[in-house]
Amino acid sequence: MSSKVILIKPYSAYERQPAPAEDADLTHVERGSPAGELMRRYWQPVALSSEVGELPIKVRMFGETLVLFRAKNGQLGLLEPHCSHRGTSLEFGICEENGLRCCYHGWLFGVDGTILETPGDPPESTLRHSLCHGAYPVHEYKGLVFGYFGPPAAKPEFPIYDSFEHPGDRLVPYYITYPCNWLQVHENVMDPAHAVFLHTRISFSHFADAWGELPEMDFVPTPTGMIYVTTRRWGDNVWVRSNDILLPNLAQVGHVWEDGATPKAFGRVAITRWTTPVDDTTCRIIGWRHFHPDADPRGLADESQCGPESVDFFGQNGDRPYEERQRIPGDYDAQVSQRPIAVHALENLTRCDRGVAMLRQLIRRQMRRMAEGEAPGVSAVRSGGLIPTYTHDTVIQVPPREDKQDDAALLREIGKGITDIVVKGPQHEQADRHERVRALIHAYAESRRETVA
Amino acid sequence: MSSKVILIKPYSAYERQPAPAEDADLTHVERGSPAGELMRRYWQPVALSSEVGELPIKVRMFGETLVLFRAKNGQLGLLEPHCSHRGTSLEFGICEENGLRCCYHGWLFGVDGTILETPGDPPESTLRHSLCHGAYPVHEYKGLVFGYFGPPAAKPEFPIYDSFEHPGDRLVPYYITYPCNWLQVHENVMDPAHAVFLHTRISFSHFADAWGELPEMDFVPTPTGMIYVTTRRWGDNVWVRSNDILLPNLAQVGHVWEDGATPKAFGRVAITRWTTPVDDTTCRIIGWRHFHPDADPRGLADESQCGPESVDFFGQNGDRPYEERQRIPGDYDAQVSQRPIAVHALENLTRCDRGVAMLRQLIRRQMRRMAEGEAPGVSAVRSGGLIPTYTHDTVIQVPPREDKQDDAALLREIGKGITDIVVKGPQHEQADRHERVRALIHAYAESRRETVA
Amino acid sequence: MSSKVILIKPYSAYERQPAPAEDADLTHVERGSPAGELMRRYWQPVALSSEVGELPIKVRMFGETLVLFRAKNGQLGLLEPHCSHRGTSLEFGICEENGLRCCYHGWLFGVDGTILETPGDPPESTLRHSLCHGAYPVHEYKGLVFGYFGPPAAKPEFPIYDSFEHPGDRLVPYYITYPCNWLQVHENVMDPAHAVFLHTRISFSHFADAWGELPEMDFVPTPTGMIYVTTRRWGDNVWVRSNDILLPNLAQVGHVWEDGATPKAFGRVAITRWTTPVDDTTCRIIGWRHFHPDADPRGLADESQCGPESVDFFGQNGDRPYEERQRIPGDYDAQVSQRPIAVHALENLTRCDRGVAMLRQLIRRQMRRMAEGEAPGVSAVRSGGLIPTYTHDTVIQVPPREDKQDDAALLREIGKGITDIVVKGPQHEQADRHERVRALIHAYAESRRETVA
Repeated sequence: MSSKVILIKPYSAYERQPAPAEDADLTHVERGSPAGELMRRYWQPVALSSEVGELPIKVRMFGETLVLFRAKNGQLGLLEPHCSHRGTSLEFGICEENGLRCCYHGWLFGVDGTILETPGDPPESTLRHSLCHGAYPVHEYKGLVFGYFGPPAAKPEFPIYDSFEHPGDRLVPYYITYPCNWLQVHENVMDPAHAVFLHTRISFSHFADAWGELPEMDFVPTPTGMIYVTTRRWGDNVWVRSNDILLPNLAQVGHVWEDGATPKAFGRVAITRWTTPVDDTTCRIIGWRHFHPDADPRGLADESQCGPESVDFFGQNGDRPYEERQRIPGDYDAQVSQRPIAVHALENLTRCDRGVAMLRQLIRRQMRRMAEGEAPGVSAVRSGGLIPTYTHDTVIQVPPREDKQDDAALLREIGKGITDIVVKGPQHEQADRHERVRALIHAYAESRRETVA
Repeated sequence: MSSKVILIKPYSAYERQPAPAEDADLTHVERGSPAGELMRRYWQPVALSSEVGELPIKVRMFGETLVLFRAKNGQLGLLEPHCSHRGTSLEFGICEENGLRCCYHGWLFGVDGTILETPGDPPESTLRHSLCHGAYPVHEYKGLVFGYFGPPAAKPEFPIYDSFEHPGDRLVPYYITYPCNWLQVHENVMDPAHAVFLHTRISFSHFADAWGELPEMDFVPTPTGMIYVTTRRWGDNVWVRSNDILLPNLAQVGHVWEDGATPKAFGRVAITRWTTPVDDTTCRIIGWRHFHPDADPRGLADESQCGPESVDFFGQNGDRPYEERQRIPGDYDAQVSQRPIAVHALENLTRCDRGVAMLRQLIRRQMRRMAEGEAPGVSAVRSGGLIPTYTHDTVIQVPPREDKQDDAALLREIGKGITDIVVKGPQHEQADRHERVRALIHAYAESRRETVA
Repeated sequence: MSSKVILIKPYSAYERQPAPAEDADLTHVERGSPAGELMRRYWQPVALSSEVGELPIKVRMFGETLVLFRAKNGQLGLLEPHCSHRGTSLEFGICEENGLRCCYHGWLFGVDGTILETPGDPPESTLRHSLCHGAYPVHEYKGLVFGYFGPPAAKPEFPIYDSFEHPGDRLVPYYITYPCNWLQVHENVMDPAHAVFLHTRISFSHFADAWGELPEMDFVPTPTGMIYVTTRRWGDNVWVRSNDILLPNLAQVGHVWEDGATPKAFGRVAITRWTTPVDDTTCRIIGWRHFHPDADPRGLADESQCGPESVDFFGQNGDRPYEERQRIPGDYDAQVSQRPIAVHALENLTRCDRGVAMLRQLIRRQMRRMAEGEAPGVSAVRSGGLIPTYTHDTVIQVPPREDKQDDAALLREIGKGITDIVVKGPQHEQADRHERVRALIHAYAESRRETVA
């Protein structure tokens, strides 16, 4: 880590020392980099299923360019781009029944990199058995194509989180490419303060006015990573909201139009998003928008806007005119402009940045453990065969205390009470976890009402 | 300085040695470079006032990107672009009453870099008092915004030259960005020979036919830098013209449509232009076109063409089609194509390049003195409180001598006589300097007429 | 040469070592590189005559940018771009009677680099005699402008090959620029297997169905370089075709619409093409399409399509939409995508790549000899004053043998028999070489017919 450099006088930019370097361990992603090797141990989405048709497509991950294709038999292959014969790009290859054929001399590659034919060669040639084309394993799930980029021997099961199979949810794949490092985009999910300013007070209420209230904030570890806990006073209601980080680079978020107006218990995920490392200075938010009636109280969700480089809420890409982006900036503008790779040594973190700091610590801990030989992985906790997740919105009726300080203490107490139910307890290993959590929240809300009364 | 490398035989390009490097001391401008540090000691224009409206703008100088904004109270601020909190660019900040607010978490910065608010922080936080955001001082004058980029303790007064306040002049700001080093653009002002070729003989008379006459040339130091003195025979008239360099990077030029046809004494400035160092391979001509009846004898001036990337005379930017630029090249084409940074070691300077050589010597002398600890500055000479400048056009009636050599000697004598009046003598420290200089020139012209008669 | 790195297991891309470097000796072209110095010993085409009109043009070769112009007296000059005076680009110069005049201060340069005028200088100045502007020799021939870029003392005669003066041929100049290294584009001519796959089986028959038959292949040295010999069975006909490499970087090719359907003896060249090294990662195919009735059996040739960046057969440039290039890839797509510079250490060459391997060996041998002090050059063999070349298409009637192996042996025997006539024997030094070769082929065909009967 570089040491911090600050100015202390007005009009002193001339005194600025050369900018320190970014934190390479946490941000760099190419082969051999600590963060890159950590993320390579997890399945990473690389494309939407809908993009892989008759033609191969080029994808880029961890600084590598690859060719993704679907054989006519339906199997997907993720190959190194240059033909093993003489290097022609397989993006110009032809998809055949069981593989991809190079256009130049007709070599045929299976989805696993096996060389199936070298037709310019004499029939007796054994060349093709003596080598293999570079390939990565692929897994397709609910409209997303995932690759595994780590050591073959360490390939994990594809993990299914409860939110992927939530009854009544429709999952619509989308992605947006950001011309900046992955970490600063990922960190945004553990930064609840930006919602107060960027999303509400700065230009207009992107989502709902309730977001403009500076919440009580807490940051809590979970078996899969961490959540933030924001607790806001909104009239006679108390709204507790948690976003979820599933280490290292998966995040889940409740719906963005929540306004705290109506009591609810353990409302679930509206966005599942990996922040994938395309290269050191490019990343992609890729995942699903969840569509279900609970997550769209005011009819603002729009499935037709979700897909390549597009999603159905404000300020998520760079397509707007520059002047409009200046007048009403969005997430994309705030995060991309933190520099191609944000420089931590130039930051001045405050109390409201505790979530960002904790996320970095958790990732460092994962990297350290991996360096010590421990295999990264997910929690063994299961609920009905699925891995529990902790994103939620909960709104309970508790009238405000008269004194502002007292009410803040009340909010913190309620935030902690609800979070204990959401994160701790034996209910998380039972198949009816959702019902049990909701019942416990209802009971807690009732007890609070009685306390007040 | 690199040593010179020349070829001496026809068809010998194969013998060419690798190109030597540019003269970094004179041309490079980033922090710590001799020329960069020299120019940082002077106020430098960075934008037109008219460009700084409701939205911040990005400006680039000395290789640094900065954000310039106008607070609602009218003050201008010139700040480092990345927010001191987490690095988001302040180009997406919101202009408020007394500062610029970052869009991401709402930090508010004063025009001097003071941190006025860190609203995500607890009210009792003192963080904002312990650091300052990088800022440079700003001065606004006659439609231009100037910054001071040097050591705070060495900040000079903003200098007012007599030409900035010339009675009857209207000053119209403009600029043009050149994709090449600043020095080769600045040198052009001390290169009167190019006017003969580029501006007149090569394709068509850009200004007036009189420019095509190769003049007698001299180069004379002044209290603020240097002038060129060109003296031309045009029929029964002798036209003496001087452009002015105000060290290090300000220049003034008489009007370009002067044709030597009508007697005049001490006609003044039509263009005031700084050649500012945007970075090592980009510069900007920025300043004012002066509009007044004297400077537009044939009604060719056009104020409506002066502004961002545009000015009202031929060949000053790269907007023309390439083929047209080849057929009728202009200053922009000749200067930009000298290479991104002209390489002095590859030049073959001649007698007509004495002005360019002298300008380089003067800048070197300034750099040397600064290295020895002397503070750069302007002459202490004042005329009515303003710093005198020496640009002028003067035309007097003196019929030609029959012998060409004799007439050339006559021109040199007249050039010297007029220049002595323009540059030397006690009149330059008196409030009515202009009237006195003109009276002396009239008397000199009268005496010449008598001599001839 | 880098050592080879291969993968041997499916799904093992993670094991890939960092890519080895390209073979710099064979591929790099800048001053001092072995391949670059070799090619500098030969006249190289740099432009079409039709491109050099009233205005100078910029050309780029061997990593150098140059200005090519035609003086009003008709002479061509190829000059270093930056004026010897102060560096302004001569692309903005004015073509005059006997040279090119710089726009800035009017220096005038002859086609050989002699400095003819320095008009800003005093008349008595001798500066212009003490140096010379960098120039390369130029030769214009049949619509192409050639430069010689090597050591002046080693400048060879401009070589005239028999195919340049073939009776009845019309030579139409064209070129196409490839954003990749020269060698991979040049090698394509010695790679007959790609015609089977890329040009016929992969998407559609670019030329004729007969190309889709995998031929018997041989590769044979000639006095000027090498040829490939492909022998194909097509019904009752045997089609022998040879492309010709004239070392180092000239190639000749028979016409592409040959279908093997009609007997012919020693059909000649349809394309003469240099693959010129623009820089390490850019090359140009530049030469002539030959138009004559023999080379266009089905009326598919189209002279109007031949010129800058265009030629009259499929897939030769990058102008097609990306998706179309993926569906029906052409030479351009296959070759450019081999990487900016193909990496030989990553290839897996097979029997069908023997021509490519042999071409590399021949170039290496030339480079080695040059390093040992031997002057590169062309064969001294002449036929009617012209240098014989060996490209041909020959089709003779010989019915197939029943057994496939037997017929393959027959094809090899016929290929060898025809090639012996085409390449060996005293007829190649006689003025009526073409008639004699044809007579010998007719006699051979007759003898084969008798053998079979």
